[in-house]
Amino acid sequence: MFKKICILGCGLIGSSILRAINKNKLSKENSVFDKSKKVLDFLKKEKLSSEVTDDIQLAVKNADLIIISTPLSSYAELISLIKNDLKAGVILTDTGSVKKEINKVIENSKLKNIHWIASHPIAGTEESGPEAGFADLFKNRWCILSANNQVAKDKIEILERFWSKLGSKVKLMSFEDHDYVLSLTSHLPHAVAYSIVRTAINNEDKFKNDVIQYSAGGLRDFTRIAASDPLMWKDIFIDNSDYILKVLDNYSKNLDEIKNAVKNKDSKKLLEIFSSTKKVRKEIIEAGQDTKKPDFGRK
Amino acid sequence: MFKKICILGCGLIGSSILRAINKNKLSKENSVFDKSKKVLDFLKKEKLSSEVTDDIQLAVKNADLIIISTPLSSYAELISLIKNDLKAGVILTDTGSVKKEINKVIENSKLKNIHWIASHPIAGTEESGPEAGFADLFKNRWCILSANNQVAKDKIEILERFWSKLGSKVKLMSFEDHDYVLSLTSHLPHAVAYSIVRTAINNEDKFKNDVIQYSAGGLRDFTRIAASDPLMWKDIFIDNSDYILKVLDNYSKNLDEIKNAVKNKDSKKLLEIFSSTKKVRKEIIEAGQDTKKPDFGRK
Repeated sequence: MFKKICILGCGLIGSSILRAINKNKLSKENSVFDKSKKVLDFLKKEKLSSEVTDDIQLAVKNADLIIISTPLSSYAELISLIKNDLKAGVILTDTGSVKKEINKVIENSKLKNIHWIASHPIAGTEESGPEAGFADLFKNRWCILSANNQVAKDKIEILERFWSKLGSKVKLMSFEDHDYVLSLTSHLPHAVAYSIVRTAINNEDKFKNDVIQYSAGGLRDFTRIAASDPLMWKDIFIDNSDYILKVLDNYSKNLDEIKNAVKNKDSKKLLEIFSSTKKVRKEIIEAGQDTKKPDFGRK
Repeated sequence: MFKKICILGCGLIGSSILRAINKNKLSKENSVFDKSKKVLDFLKKEKLSSEVTDDIQLAVKNADLIIISTPLSSYAELISLIKNDLKAGVILTDTGSVKKEINKVIENSKLKNIHWIASHPIAGTEESGPEAGFADLFKNRWCILSANNQVAKDKIEILERFWSKLGSKVKLMSFEDHDYVLSLTSHLPHAVAYSIVRTAINNEDKFKNDVIQYSAGGLRDFTRIAASDPLMWKDIFIDNSDYILKVLDNYSKNLDEIKNAVKNKDSKKLLEIFSSTKKVRKEIIEAGQDTKKPDFGRK
Protein backbone atom coordinates (compact mmCIF):
# COMPACT_ATOMS: atom_id res chain seq x y z
CA MET A 1 0.00 0.00 0.00
CA PHE A 2 2.91 2.32 0.81
CA LYS A 3 6.57 2.06 -0.02
CA LYS A 4 7.70 3.42 3.31
CA ILE A 5 5.69 4.34 6.39
CA CYS A 6 7.36 6.36 9.13
CA ILE A 7 6.05 6.46 12.68
CA LEU A 8 7.16 9.32 14.88
CA GLY A 9 6.77 8.40 18.54
CA CYS A 10 6.20 4.78 19.46
CA GLY A 11 4.10 4.48 22.61
CA LEU A 12 0.84 2.58 23.02
CA ILE A 13 -0.70 4.02 19.84
CA GLY A 14 2.41 4.25 17.65
CA SER A 15 3.50 0.71 18.45
CA SER A 16 0.00 -0.64 17.88
CA ILE A 17 -0.04 0.96 14.42
CA LEU A 18 3.40 -0.48 13.72
CA ARG A 19 2.27 -3.97 14.73
CA ALA A 20 -0.87 -3.65 12.60
CA ILE A 21 1.15 -2.46 9.60
CA ASN A 22 3.46 -5.46 9.95
CA LYS A 23 0.59 -7.88 10.44
CA ASN A 24 -1.32 -6.59 7.41
CA LYS A 25 1.79 -5.96 5.25
CA LEU A 26 0.78 -2.38 4.45
CA SER A 27 4.25 -1.15 3.47
CA LYS A 28 7.44 -2.47 1.89
CA GLU A 29 9.49 -0.90 4.63
CA ASN A 30 8.92 1.22 7.67
CA SER A 31 10.88 3.38 10.07
CA VAL A 32 10.36 4.44 13.65
CA PHE A 33 11.65 7.50 15.45
CA ASP A 34 11.52 7.82 19.22
CA LYS A 35 13.70 9.91 21.51
CA SER A 36 13.60 7.35 24.33
CA LYS A 37 16.46 4.84 24.35
CA LYS A 38 14.29 2.44 26.32
CA VAL A 39 11.61 2.51 23.61
CA LEU A 40 14.18 2.04 20.83
CA ASP A 41 15.76 -0.90 22.66
CA PHE A 42 12.36 -2.54 23.08
CA LEU A 43 11.51 -2.12 19.37
CA LYS A 44 14.85 -3.59 18.33
CA LYS A 45 14.51 -6.50 20.72
CA GLU A 46 11.03 -7.29 19.41
CA LYS A 47 12.20 -6.74 15.79
CA LEU A 48 9.16 -4.55 15.12
CA SER A 49 10.92 -2.44 12.49
CA SER A 50 14.11 -2.67 10.45
CA GLU A 51 14.77 1.07 10.91
CA VAL A 52 14.63 2.14 14.55
CA THR A 53 16.32 5.45 15.23
CA ASP A 54 16.58 8.61 17.29
CA ASP A 55 17.55 10.53 14.14
CA ILE A 56 14.24 12.06 13.06
CA GLN A 57 15.50 13.37 9.70
CA LEU A 58 16.73 9.90 8.80
CA ALA A 59 13.42 8.35 9.84
CA VAL A 60 11.23 10.56 7.63
CA LYS A 61 13.49 10.32 4.57
CA ASN A 62 11.66 8.85 1.54
CA ALA A 63 8.56 8.03 3.58
CA ASP A 64 5.29 8.39 1.68
CA LEU A 65 3.20 8.18 4.86
CA ILE A 66 4.30 9.82 8.10
CA ILE A 67 2.28 9.27 11.27
CA ILE A 68 2.93 11.61 14.19
CA SER A 69 2.15 9.79 17.39
CA THR A 70 3.81 12.00 19.99
CA PRO A 71 2.20 14.29 22.62
CA LEU A 72 0.38 17.32 21.15
CA SER A 73 2.82 19.74 22.76
CA SER A 74 5.72 18.29 20.75
CA TYR A 75 4.26 18.87 17.26
CA ALA A 76 5.70 22.37 16.68
CA GLU A 77 9.28 21.36 17.44
CA LEU A 78 8.92 18.10 15.57
CA ILE A 79 7.63 19.76 12.39
CA SER A 80 10.45 22.30 12.46
CA LEU A 81 12.94 19.43 12.62
CA ILE A 82 11.55 17.49 9.66
CA LYS A 83 10.25 20.24 7.37
CA ASN A 84 13.25 20.17 5.04
CA ASP A 85 13.48 16.39 4.82
CA LEU A 86 10.04 15.47 3.58
CA LYS A 87 9.51 13.58 0.35
CA ALA A 88 7.43 15.50 -2.19
CA GLY A 89 3.81 14.34 -2.08
CA VAL A 90 4.06 12.66 1.33
CA ILE A 91 0.85 12.15 3.32
CA LEU A 92 1.34 13.59 6.80
CA THR A 93 -1.05 12.46 9.51
CA ASP A 94 -1.16 12.08 13.28
CA THR A 95 -3.09 10.38 16.07
CA GLY A 96 -3.71 13.32 18.40
CA SER A 97 -6.86 13.76 20.48
CA VAL A 98 -7.41 17.48 19.76
CA LYS A 99 -7.34 18.93 16.27
CA LYS A 100 -7.96 22.69 15.93
CA GLU A 101 -4.77 23.85 17.63
CA ILE A 102 -2.42 21.38 15.98
CA ASN A 103 -3.95 22.20 12.61
CA LYS A 104 -2.88 25.80 13.24
CA VAL A 105 0.63 24.58 14.08
CA ILE A 106 0.89 22.66 10.80
CA GLU A 107 -0.67 25.49 8.75
CA ASN A 108 1.72 28.01 10.26
CA SER A 109 4.74 25.90 9.43
CA LYS A 110 3.94 26.33 5.70
CA LEU A 111 5.05 22.88 4.61
CA LYS A 112 5.24 22.58 0.83
CA ASN A 113 4.12 19.74 -1.41
CA ILE A 114 2.71 17.60 1.37
CA HIS A 115 -0.82 16.38 2.15
CA TRP A 116 -1.79 17.07 5.75
CA ILE A 117 -4.77 14.99 6.89
CA ALA A 118 -5.33 14.65 10.64
CA SER A 119 -6.35 11.28 12.11
CA HIS A 120 -7.81 10.47 15.49
CA PRO A 121 -8.23 6.77 16.20
CA ILE A 122 -10.73 6.53 19.10
CA ALA A 123 -8.87 3.64 20.66
CA GLY A 124 -6.55 3.12 23.57
CA THR A 125 -6.31 1.59 26.99
CA GLU A 126 -5.23 2.92 30.38
CA GLU A 127 -1.75 1.51 29.71
CA SER A 128 1.15 3.44 28.15
CA GLY A 129 4.34 2.54 26.28
CA PRO A 130 5.20 0.23 23.36
CA GLU A 131 4.95 -2.92 25.52
CA ALA A 132 1.22 -2.23 25.92
CA GLY A 133 0.53 -1.99 22.18
CA PHE A 134 -1.21 -4.67 20.10
CA ALA A 135 -2.18 -5.02 16.44
CA ASP A 136 -5.93 -5.31 17.04
CA LEU A 137 -6.27 -2.10 19.05
CA PHE A 138 -8.07 -0.32 16.19
CA LYS A 139 -10.38 -3.16 15.21
CA ASN A 140 -14.03 -2.06 15.13
CA ARG A 141 -13.09 1.32 16.59
CA TRP A 142 -13.76 4.65 14.91
CA CYS A 143 -11.07 6.77 13.33
CA ILE A 144 -11.94 10.41 12.61
CA LEU A 145 -10.17 12.17 9.76
CA SER A 146 -10.07 15.96 9.36
CA ALA A 147 -8.63 17.95 6.48
CA ASN A 148 -8.88 21.40 4.99
CA ASN A 149 -10.89 21.89 1.82
CA GLN A 150 -7.91 22.13 -0.51
CA VAL A 151 -6.62 18.64 0.32
CA ALA A 152 -6.89 16.27 -2.63
CA LYS A 153 -9.76 13.76 -2.33
CA ASP A 154 -7.72 10.82 -3.54
CA LYS A 155 -5.18 11.35 -0.76
CA ILE A 156 -7.94 11.32 1.82
CA GLU A 157 -9.22 8.09 0.28
CA ILE A 158 -5.79 6.51 0.57
CA LEU A 159 -5.65 7.36 4.27
CA GLU A 160 -9.21 6.10 4.75
CA ARG A 161 -8.18 2.80 3.20
CA PHE A 162 -5.14 2.65 5.47
CA TRP A 163 -7.25 2.90 8.64
CA SER A 164 -9.81 0.49 7.22
CA LYS A 165 -7.06 -2.07 6.75
CA LEU A 166 -6.24 -1.63 10.44
CA GLY A 167 -9.86 -2.61 11.15
CA SER A 168 -11.24 0.86 11.87
CA LYS A 169 -14.44 2.51 10.72
CA VAL A 170 -13.54 5.89 9.27
CA LYS A 171 -15.48 9.16 9.42
CA LEU A 172 -14.64 12.63 8.12
CA MET A 173 -15.31 15.54 10.45
CA SER A 174 -14.25 19.18 10.60
CA PHE A 175 -11.45 20.08 13.04
CA GLU A 176 -13.96 22.16 14.99
CA ASP A 177 -16.73 19.54 15.25
CA HIS A 178 -14.18 16.90 16.22
CA ASP A 179 -12.96 18.95 19.16
CA TYR A 180 -16.48 19.63 20.39
CA VAL A 181 -17.74 16.04 20.15
CA LEU A 182 -14.60 14.71 21.83
CA SER A 183 -14.85 17.27 24.61
CA LEU A 184 -18.15 15.55 25.49
CA THR A 185 -17.30 11.90 24.90
CA SER A 186 -13.74 11.85 26.15
CA HIS A 187 -12.34 15.02 27.74
CA LEU A 188 -15.25 15.69 30.11
CA PRO A 189 -15.24 12.05 31.33
CA HIS A 190 -11.53 12.35 32.05
CA ALA A 191 -11.88 15.63 33.98
CA VAL A 192 -14.64 14.07 36.02
CA ALA A 193 -12.78 10.82 36.65
CA TYR A 194 -9.69 12.62 37.92
CA SER A 195 -11.83 14.77 40.24
CA ILE A 196 -13.78 11.89 41.67
CA VAL A 197 -10.74 9.74 42.37
CA ARG A 198 -9.04 12.72 44.03
CA THR A 199 -12.13 13.33 46.16
CA ALA A 200 -12.28 9.71 47.25
CA ILE A 201 -8.61 9.38 48.17
CA ASN A 202 -7.97 12.87 49.59
CA ASN A 203 -9.39 11.54 52.75
CA GLU A 204 -8.62 11.05 56.36
CA ASP A 205 -6.29 8.09 56.61
CA LYS A 206 -8.91 6.30 58.69
CA PHE A 207 -10.99 5.58 55.59
CA LYS A 208 -8.30 5.31 52.91
CA ASN A 209 -8.22 1.50 52.97
CA ASP A 210 -12.00 1.25 53.14
CA VAL A 211 -12.32 3.36 50.01
CA ILE A 212 -10.02 0.98 48.13
CA GLN A 213 -11.74 -2.14 49.54
CA TYR A 214 -15.26 -1.10 48.71
CA SER A 215 -14.53 0.48 45.34
CA ALA A 216 -16.63 -2.11 43.52
CA GLY A 217 -19.72 -0.02 44.33
CA GLY A 218 -18.88 2.32 41.47
CA LEU A 219 -15.55 4.07 42.10
CA ARG A 220 -13.43 1.41 40.41
CA ASP A 221 -14.96 2.19 36.99
CA PHE A 222 -13.54 5.72 37.22
CA THR A 223 -10.07 4.72 38.33
CA ARG A 224 -9.45 3.08 34.96
CA ILE A 225 -9.78 6.37 33.12
CA ALA A 226 -7.94 8.27 35.83
CA ALA A 227 -4.95 5.97 35.29
CA SER A 228 -4.36 7.28 31.75
CA ASP A 229 -1.11 8.92 30.66
CA PRO A 230 -0.81 12.27 32.54
CA LEU A 231 1.41 13.98 29.94
CA MET A 232 -0.96 13.18 27.10
CA TRP A 233 -3.95 14.44 29.06
CA LYS A 234 -2.25 17.63 30.20
CA ASP A 235 -1.76 18.49 26.50
CA ILE A 236 -5.37 17.68 25.63
CA PHE A 237 -6.71 19.97 28.36
CA ILE A 238 -4.48 22.82 27.20
CA ASP A 239 -5.26 22.41 23.48
CA ASN A 240 -9.03 22.01 23.86
CA SER A 241 -9.49 24.37 26.78
CA ASP A 242 -12.36 26.42 25.28
CA TYR A 243 -14.67 23.49 24.67
CA ILE A 244 -13.65 21.73 27.86
CA LEU A 245 -14.54 24.78 29.95
CA LYS A 246 -17.84 25.09 28.12
CA VAL A 247 -18.90 21.48 28.71
CA LEU A 248 -17.66 21.59 32.31
CA ASP A 249 -20.05 24.50 32.88
CA ASN A 250 -22.96 22.52 31.45
CA TYR A 251 -21.91 19.57 33.54
CA SER A 252 -21.84 21.66 36.73
CA LYS A 253 -25.41 22.76 36.01
CA ASN A 254 -26.51 19.13 35.73
CA LEU A 255 -24.72 18.28 38.95
CA ASP A 256 -26.36 21.23 40.72
CA GLU A 257 -29.73 19.89 39.65
CA ILE A 258 -28.98 16.64 41.49
CA LYS A 259 -27.57 18.55 44.49
CA ASN A 260 -30.72 20.65 44.79
CA ALA A 261 -32.99 17.64 44.45
CA VAL A 262 -31.02 15.91 47.24
CA LYS A 263 -31.14 19.03 49.44
CA ASN A 264 -34.90 19.28 48.97
CA LYS A 265 -35.38 15.49 49.26
CA ASP A 266 -37.27 15.81 45.96
CA SER A 267 -37.98 12.15 45.14
CA LYS A 268 -39.88 12.96 41.97
CA LYS A 269 -37.04 15.00 40.50
CA LEU A 270 -34.42 12.40 41.45
CA LEU A 271 -36.43 9.63 39.86
CA GLU A 272 -36.77 11.73 36.70
CA ILE A 273 -33.02 12.38 36.57
CA PHE A 274 -32.05 8.76 37.23
CA SER A 275 -34.52 7.46 34.65
CA SER A 276 -33.34 9.77 31.89
CA THR A 277 -29.94 8.13 31.39
CA LYS A 278 -30.91 4.49 31.18
CA LYS A 279 -31.52 4.29 27.45
CA VAL A 280 -28.19 5.86 26.44
CA ARG A 281 -26.35 2.71 27.44
CA LYS A 282 -28.66 0.66 25.24
CA GLU A 283 -27.92 2.97 22.32
CA ILE A 284 -24.18 2.68 22.86
CA ILE A 285 -24.39 -1.10 22.91
CA GLU A 286 -26.55 -1.10 19.78
CA ALA A 287 -23.96 1.12 18.10
CA GLY A 288 -21.37 -1.59 18.83
CA GLN A 289 -19.38 0.70 21.12
CA ASP A 290 -19.51 -1.45 24.24
CA THR A 291 -20.18 -4.98 25.43
CA LYS A 292 -23.68 -5.76 26.64
CA LYS A 293 -22.40 -8.12 29.31
CA PRO A 294 -23.25 -6.83 32.81
CA ASP A 295 -20.27 -5.27 34.61
CA PHE A 296 -18.40 -5.15 31.25
CA GLY A 297 -18.10 -8.94 31.57
CA ARG A 298 -15.75 -8.60 34.53
CA LYS A 299 -15.44 -11.59 36.84
CA MET B 1 -27.53 -23.84 58.33
CA PHE B 2 -31.08 -22.48 58.75
CA LYS B 3 -34.41 -24.25 58.92
CA LYS B 4 -36.21 -21.63 56.89
CA ILE B 5 -34.87 -18.55 55.14
CA CYS B 6 -37.32 -15.91 53.93
CA ILE B 7 -36.45 -13.39 51.22
CA LEU B 8 -38.59 -10.27 51.00
CA GLY B 9 -38.27 -8.75 47.54
CA CYS B 10 -36.75 -10.79 44.77
CA GLY B 11 -34.99 -8.56 42.24
CA LEU B 12 -31.36 -8.81 41.13
CA ILE B 13 -30.01 -9.10 44.69
CA GLY B 14 -32.82 -11.12 46.29
CA SER B 15 -32.89 -13.66 43.47
CA SER B 16 -29.10 -13.99 43.51
CA ILE B 17 -29.21 -14.75 47.24
CA LEU B 18 -31.97 -17.28 46.61
CA ARG B 19 -29.96 -19.00 43.90
CA ALA B 20 -26.86 -19.06 46.12
CA ILE B 21 -28.86 -20.50 49.05
CA ASN B 22 -30.18 -23.26 46.80
CA LYS B 23 -26.79 -23.96 45.28
CA ASN B 24 -25.05 -24.17 48.64
CA LYS B 25 -27.98 -25.86 50.45
CA LEU B 26 -28.02 -23.31 53.29
CA SER B 27 -31.60 -23.97 54.45
CA LYS B 28 -34.07 -26.82 54.67
CA GLU B 29 -36.76 -24.65 53.14
CA ASN B 30 -37.12 -21.09 51.96
CA SER B 31 -39.87 -18.67 51.08
CA VAL B 32 -40.02 -15.63 48.85
CA PHE B 33 -42.35 -12.66 49.05
CA ASP B 34 -42.69 -10.21 46.20
CA LYS B 35 -45.61 -7.94 45.35
CA SER B 36 -45.03 -8.21 41.60
CA LYS B 37 -46.99 -10.95 39.83
CA LYS B 38 -44.40 -11.00 37.07
CA VAL B 39 -41.63 -11.72 39.56
CA LEU B 40 -43.65 -14.45 41.28
CA ASP B 41 -44.45 -16.10 37.95
CA PHE B 42 -40.78 -16.08 37.00
CA LEU B 43 -39.73 -17.66 40.32
CA LYS B 44 -42.36 -20.38 39.98
CA LYS B 45 -41.41 -21.10 36.40
CA GLU B 46 -37.74 -21.42 37.34
CA LYS B 47 -38.66 -23.44 40.46
CA LEU B 48 -36.36 -21.26 42.58
CA SER B 49 -38.41 -21.71 45.76
CA SER B 50 -41.20 -24.01 46.96
CA GLU B 51 -42.96 -21.09 48.68
CA VAL B 52 -43.49 -18.12 46.38
CA THR B 53 -46.16 -15.74 47.58
CA ASP B 54 -47.54 -12.21 47.71
CA ASP B 55 -48.72 -12.87 51.28
CA ILE B 56 -45.93 -11.36 53.36
CA GLN B 57 -47.18 -12.69 56.71
CA LEU B 58 -47.23 -16.21 55.31
CA ALA B 59 -43.73 -15.79 53.90
CA VAL B 60 -42.10 -14.74 57.18
CA LYS B 61 -43.87 -17.37 59.31
CA ASN B 62 -41.41 -19.71 61.08
CA ALA B 63 -38.42 -18.22 59.24
CA ASP B 64 -35.23 -18.08 61.31
CA LEU B 65 -33.51 -15.78 58.83
CA ILE B 66 -35.35 -12.98 57.05
CA ILE B 67 -33.58 -10.96 54.36
CA ILE B 68 -35.18 -7.68 53.29
CA SER B 69 -34.20 -6.99 49.71
CA THR B 70 -36.70 -4.29 48.73
CA PRO B 71 -36.10 -0.56 48.09
CA LEU B 72 -35.14 1.44 51.21
CA SER B 73 -38.34 3.49 51.08
CA SER B 74 -40.44 0.34 51.57
CA TYR B 75 -38.89 -0.80 54.89
CA ALA B 76 -41.25 1.10 57.22
CA GLU B 77 -44.42 -0.30 55.68
CA LEU B 78 -42.92 -3.75 55.33
CA ILE B 79 -41.88 -3.93 59.01
CA SER B 80 -45.33 -2.80 60.14
CA LEU B 81 -46.86 -5.64 58.11
CA ILE B 82 -44.67 -8.42 59.52
CA LYS B 83 -44.03 -7.28 63.10
CA ASN B 84 -46.64 -9.58 64.65
CA ASP B 85 -45.71 -12.64 62.61
CA LEU B 86 -42.02 -13.01 63.41
CA LYS B 87 -40.65 -16.17 64.98
CA ALA B 88 -39.00 -15.56 68.36
CA GLY B 89 -35.22 -15.29 67.97
CA VAL B 90 -35.30 -14.67 64.21
CA ILE B 91 -32.30 -12.96 62.62
CA LEU B 92 -33.54 -10.00 60.58
CA THR B 93 -31.19 -8.57 57.97
CA ASP B 94 -31.34 -6.64 54.70
CA THR B 95 -29.26 -5.74 51.65
CA GLY B 96 -29.78 -1.97 51.54
CA SER B 97 -27.13 0.50 50.42
CA VAL B 98 -27.65 3.07 53.21
CA LYS B 99 -27.80 2.14 56.88
CA LYS B 100 -28.31 4.97 59.38
CA GLU B 101 -31.85 5.90 58.35
CA ILE B 102 -33.18 2.37 58.02
CA ASN B 103 -31.62 1.49 61.37
CA LYS B 104 -33.78 4.26 62.85
CA VAL B 105 -36.84 2.78 61.13
CA ILE B 106 -36.18 -0.64 62.64
CA GLU B 107 -35.36 0.77 66.09
CA ASN B 108 -38.52 2.86 66.09
CA SER B 109 -40.68 -0.12 65.24
CA LYS B 110 -39.67 -1.72 68.58
CA LEU B 111 -39.59 -5.31 67.36
CA LYS B 112 -39.30 -7.78 70.26
CA ASN B 113 -37.19 -10.90 70.52
CA ILE B 114 -35.50 -10.50 67.16
CA HIS B 115 -31.85 -9.93 66.16
CA TRP B 116 -31.49 -7.02 63.75
CA ILE B 117 -28.15 -7.06 61.91
CA ALA B 118 -27.87 -4.98 58.74
CA SER B 119 -26.05 -6.39 55.69
CA HIS B 120 -24.76 -4.61 52.63
CA PRO B 121 -23.33 -6.88 49.96
CA ILE B 122 -21.16 -4.66 47.72
CA ALA B 123 -22.21 -6.49 44.60
CA GLY B 124 -24.55 -5.87 41.72
CA THR B 125 -24.67 -5.13 38.05
CA GLU B 126 -26.43 -2.48 35.97
CA GLU B 127 -29.24 -4.98 35.35
CA SER B 128 -32.41 -5.27 37.45
CA GLY B 129 -34.98 -7.99 38.14
CA PRO B 130 -34.84 -11.69 39.08
CA GLU B 131 -33.88 -12.76 35.53
CA ALA B 132 -30.58 -10.89 35.97
CA GLY B 133 -29.62 -12.67 39.20
CA PHE B 134 -26.98 -15.39 39.49
CA ALA B 135 -25.61 -17.50 42.34
CA ASP B 136 -22.01 -16.27 42.07
CA LEU B 137 -22.84 -12.55 42.33
CA PHE B 138 -21.37 -12.33 45.85
CA LYS B 139 -18.25 -14.37 45.22
CA ASN B 140 -15.10 -12.50 46.29
CA ARG B 141 -17.14 -9.36 46.97
CA TRP B 142 -17.32 -7.60 50.32
CA CYS B 143 -20.36 -7.71 52.57
CA ILE B 144 -20.54 -5.09 55.33
CA LEU B 145 -22.46 -5.93 58.50
CA SER B 146 -23.65 -3.31 60.99
CA ALA B 147 -25.33 -3.89 64.33
CA ASN B 148 -25.97 -2.05 67.55
CA ASN B 149 -23.90 -2.93 70.63
CA GLN B 150 -26.57 -4.98 72.36
CA VAL B 151 -26.85 -7.53 69.53
CA ALA B 152 -25.58 -10.99 70.57
CA LYS B 153 -22.16 -11.84 69.16
CA ASP B 154 -23.10 -15.39 68.25
CA LYS B 155 -25.94 -14.13 66.04
CA ILE B 156 -23.56 -11.84 64.20
CA GLU B 157 -21.23 -14.78 63.72
CA ILE B 158 -24.06 -16.85 62.22
CA LEU B 159 -24.80 -14.10 59.70
CA GLU B 160 -21.08 -13.74 58.94
CA ARG B 161 -20.93 -17.44 58.19
CA PHE B 162 -23.98 -17.16 55.94
CA TRP B 163 -22.37 -14.49 53.74
CA SER B 164 -19.08 -16.40 53.74
CA LYS B 165 -20.90 -19.43 52.37
CA LEU B 166 -22.16 -17.19 49.56
CA GLY B 167 -18.50 -16.47 48.78
CA SER B 168 -18.29 -13.00 50.34
CA LYS B 169 -15.63 -11.47 52.54
CA VAL B 170 -17.34 -9.99 55.59
CA LYS B 171 -16.50 -6.85 57.54
CA LEU B 172 -18.19 -5.20 60.52
CA MET B 173 -18.65 -1.44 60.40
CA SER B 174 -20.76 1.09 62.27
CA PHE B 175 -23.91 2.36 60.54
CA GLU B 176 -22.34 5.83 60.42
CA ASP B 177 -18.96 4.79 58.95
CA HIS B 178 -20.69 2.59 56.39
CA ASP B 179 -22.74 5.48 55.08
CA TYR B 180 -19.73 7.77 54.82
CA VAL B 181 -17.45 5.27 53.06
CA LEU B 182 -20.19 4.29 50.62
CA SER B 183 -20.98 7.94 49.87
CA LEU B 184 -17.43 8.12 48.49
CA THR B 185 -17.09 4.76 46.76
CA SER B 186 -20.59 4.38 45.37
CA HIS B 187 -23.01 7.29 45.80
CA LEU B 188 -20.68 10.03 44.54
CA PRO B 189 -19.72 7.97 41.44
CA HIS B 190 -23.41 7.52 40.67
CA ALA B 191 -24.24 11.23 41.05
CA VAL B 192 -21.35 12.03 38.75
CA ALA B 193 -22.22 9.38 36.18
CA TYR B 194 -25.82 10.57 35.89
CA SER B 195 -24.64 14.18 35.48
CA ILE B 196 -22.08 13.40 32.84
CA VAL B 197 -24.40 11.27 30.73
CA ARG B 198 -27.07 13.97 30.94
CA THR B 199 -24.52 16.59 29.88
CA ALA B 200 -23.41 14.52 26.92
CA ILE B 201 -26.89 13.71 25.62
CA ASN B 202 -28.70 16.97 26.42
CA ASN B 203 -27.25 18.22 23.25
CA GLU B 204 -28.17 19.72 19.99
CA ASP B 205 -29.53 16.93 17.81
CA LYS B 206 -26.71 17.55 15.37
CA PHE B 207 -24.22 15.83 17.65
CA LYS B 208 -26.43 13.26 19.39
CA ASN B 209 -25.39 10.38 17.12
CA ASP B 210 -21.75 11.42 17.21
CA VAL B 211 -21.75 11.31 21.00
CA ILE B 212 -23.04 7.72 20.92
CA GLN B 213 -20.63 6.69 18.14
CA TYR B 214 -17.50 8.04 19.78
CA SER B 215 -18.34 7.06 23.34
CA ALA B 216 -15.40 4.67 23.52
CA GLY B 217 -13.16 7.64 24.37
CA GLY B 218 -14.37 7.52 27.99
CA LEU B 219 -18.12 8.22 28.14
CA ARG B 220 -19.18 4.60 27.76
CA ASP B 221 -17.62 3.68 31.14
CA PHE B 222 -20.04 6.09 32.84
CA THR B 223 -23.14 4.92 31.02
CA ARG B 224 -22.90 1.53 32.74
CA ILE B 225 -23.40 3.07 36.18
CA ALA B 226 -25.98 5.54 34.90
CA ALA B 227 -28.08 2.60 33.72
CA SER B 228 -28.69 1.36 37.29
CA ASP B 229 -32.15 1.00 38.81
CA PRO B 230 -33.62 4.54 39.19
CA LEU B 231 -35.98 3.67 42.06
CA MET B 232 -33.21 2.14 44.13
CA TRP B 233 -30.94 5.12 43.57
CA LYS B 234 -33.62 7.69 44.33
CA ASP B 235 -33.97 6.05 47.77
CA ILE B 236 -30.22 6.01 48.36
CA PHE B 237 -29.90 9.73 47.61
CA ILE B 238 -32.76 10.55 49.97
CA ASP B 239 -31.52 8.32 52.81
CA ASN B 240 -27.86 9.36 52.64
CA SER B 241 -28.41 13.00 51.69
CA ASP B 242 -26.14 14.52 54.38
CA TYR B 243 -23.02 12.63 53.40
CA ILE B 244 -23.77 12.84 49.70
CA LEU B 245 -24.05 16.63 49.86
CA LYS B 246 -20.81 16.79 51.85
CA VAL B 247 -18.79 14.70 49.38
CA LEU B 248 -20.37 16.51 46.41
CA ASP B 249 -19.02 19.76 47.87
CA ASN B 250 -15.52 18.29 48.16
CA TYR B 251 -15.84 16.95 44.66
CA SER B 252 -16.84 20.35 43.27
CA LYS B 253 -13.71 21.84 44.83
CA ASN B 254 -11.56 19.24 43.08
CA LEU B 255 -13.33 19.92 39.80
CA ASP B 256 -12.81 23.68 40.23
CA GLU B 257 -9.11 23.04 40.66
CA ILE B 258 -9.03 21.43 37.20
CA LYS B 259 -11.24 24.19 35.75
CA ASN B 260 -8.92 26.89 37.03
CA ALA B 261 -5.82 25.08 35.78
CA VAL B 262 -7.45 24.79 32.32
CA LYS B 263 -8.48 28.47 32.38
CA ASN B 264 -4.92 29.52 33.26
CA LYS B 265 -3.38 26.95 30.89
CA ASP B 266 -1.36 25.84 33.92
CA SER B 267 0.50 22.80 32.54
CA LYS B 268 2.36 22.14 35.77
CA LYS B 269 -0.80 22.01 37.86
CA LEU B 270 -2.61 19.79 35.33
CA LEU B 271 0.28 17.36 35.22
CA GLU B 272 0.28 17.24 39.01
CA ILE B 273 -3.46 16.53 39.13
CA PHE B 274 -3.37 13.88 36.42
CA SER B 275 -0.36 12.13 37.98
CA SER B 276 -1.91 11.93 41.44
CA THR B 277 -4.61 9.38 40.57
CA LYS B 278 -2.58 6.78 38.73
CA LYS B 279 -1.59 4.65 41.68
CA VAL B 280 -5.13 4.29 43.09
CA ARG B 281 -6.02 1.92 40.27
CA LYS B 282 -3.00 -0.22 41.08
CA GLU B 283 -4.11 -0.38 44.73
CA ILE B 284 -7.64 -1.40 43.74
CA ILE B 285 -6.33 -4.18 41.54
CA GLU B 286 -3.96 -5.35 44.28
CA ALA B 287 -6.92 -5.41 46.68
CA GLY B 288 -8.63 -7.82 44.28
CA GLN B 289 -11.43 -5.35 43.56
CA ASP B 290 -10.98 -5.14 39.79
CA THR B 291 -9.41 -6.92 36.85
CA LYS B 292 -5.96 -5.77 35.75
CA LYS B 293 -6.75 -6.40 32.09
CA PRO B 294 -6.67 -3.14 30.09
CA ASP B 295 -10.15 -1.80 29.27
CA PHE B 296 -11.61 -4.22 31.88
CA GLY B 297 -10.82 -6.99 29.38
CA ARG B 298 -13.44 -5.71 26.93
CA LYS B 299 -13.10 -6.71 23.32
